[in-house]
Amino acid sequence: MKFMEDRILKDGQVRPGNILKVDSFLNHQLDVKLLNEVGKAFYERFKDKGVTKILTVEASGIAIACMTANYFGTPVVFAKKSKSRNLDGDLYTSVVHSFTYGIDNTVTLSKKFLGADDKVLIVDDFLANGKAVNGLLDICRQAGAEVVGIGIAIEKGFQRGGDDLRERGYDLLSLAVVDEMSDTRIVFRKEA
Amino acid sequence: MKFMEDRILKDGQVRPGNILKVDSFLNHQLDVKLLNEVGKAFYERFKDKGVTKILTVEASGIAIACMTANYFGTPVVFAKKSKSRNLDGDLYTSVVHSFTYGIDNTVTLSKKFLGADDKVLIVDDFLANGKAVNGLLDICRQAGAEVVGIGIAIEKGFQRGGDDLRERGYDLLSLAVVDEMSDTRIVFRKEA
Repeated sequence: MKFMEDRILKDGQVRPGNILKVDSFLNHQLDVKLLNEVGKAFYERFKDKGVTKILTVEASGIAIACMTANYFGTPVVFAKKSKSRNLDGDLYTSVVHSFTYGIDNTVTLSKKFLGADDKVLIVDDFLANGKAVNGLLDICRQAGAEVVGIGIAIEKGFQRGGDDLRERGYDLLSLAVVDEMSDTRIVFRKEA
Repeated sequence: MKFMEDRILKDGQVRPGNILKVDSFLNHQLDVKLLNEVGKAFYERFKDKGVTKILTVEASGIAIACMTANYFGTPVVFAKKSKSRNLDGDLYTSVVHSFTYGIDNTVTLSKKFLGADDKVLIVDDFLANGKAVNGLLDICRQAGAEVVGIGIAIEKGFQRGGDDLRERGYDLLSLAVVDEMSDTRIVFRKEA
């Protein structure tokens, strides 16, 4: 979508190691007006899918998930990256490697918040190798929940995560797909 | 406020160790309609304070912060609990002990997102001993930013955090203050 591409061109910064810094609007400071546009775009695409839950993983995914849920009128459920003493009862768990933080995270979700009756829209700020989304898909599989769509703010199209999900048949909407980036330019994939 | 007290009575669960579980609506599954009410209540109280930034700490604070920022029309900035490889440049840092997770967290915030011109509303889901809020206050002090208010969804009034902040002169709005709780009852503080 043009609004996300325009914002990346305006405020994104490319850093060594294929890092696209968007911390001024997406994952440290949050431009809530932009996030509202993200939620609205996801709603327009997935509004007829019978969504019952918006699923994401902490932390920055929570912002997008809340803005999206505002349009759908459904609850958000977010997977947690560390096991809290407050979490009790049965948990779904899946192991996710974070390239950003360089560690394996076990993501967990209380079984009581996701079940076989749910139609799930998974959302997140970034999709690169797809590890986080695949962890959430694994949790949905364990729950017997149906994944009706995946909404991503920014996909790194030069990594395999997004295309792998498309090949597996998931209905994936990435608002901007970066196919190439360097100090001097960012190339977006044309919308299909 | 009555809407938060009512929801705690309806869906909160008291567990051993003074734990009040509200994970069905506030910090694991998120009732976005309720969070909108929280944001609206914070806006009504602090709308004349010239707020320029909503400040919180990951993870569940992000949800409340976004819903609050929706009313104020300002950005959110959230402090991070672990240092990411993506974070570069100068950082404000403060050490916060999490009783929930049983560990010390160093919370960090990029200096570029908070400065001496900012008027800050700090928000979070819970206030108990006050460690998280005090970490955010420490960061604001380092930034030279003015803290114009603190908005909390649920305060454990039987711990010292909230009353300590009030004694130090902060304008603190807690939507529900739990003064006593047990398996059989929850007692709220009457509004001043």
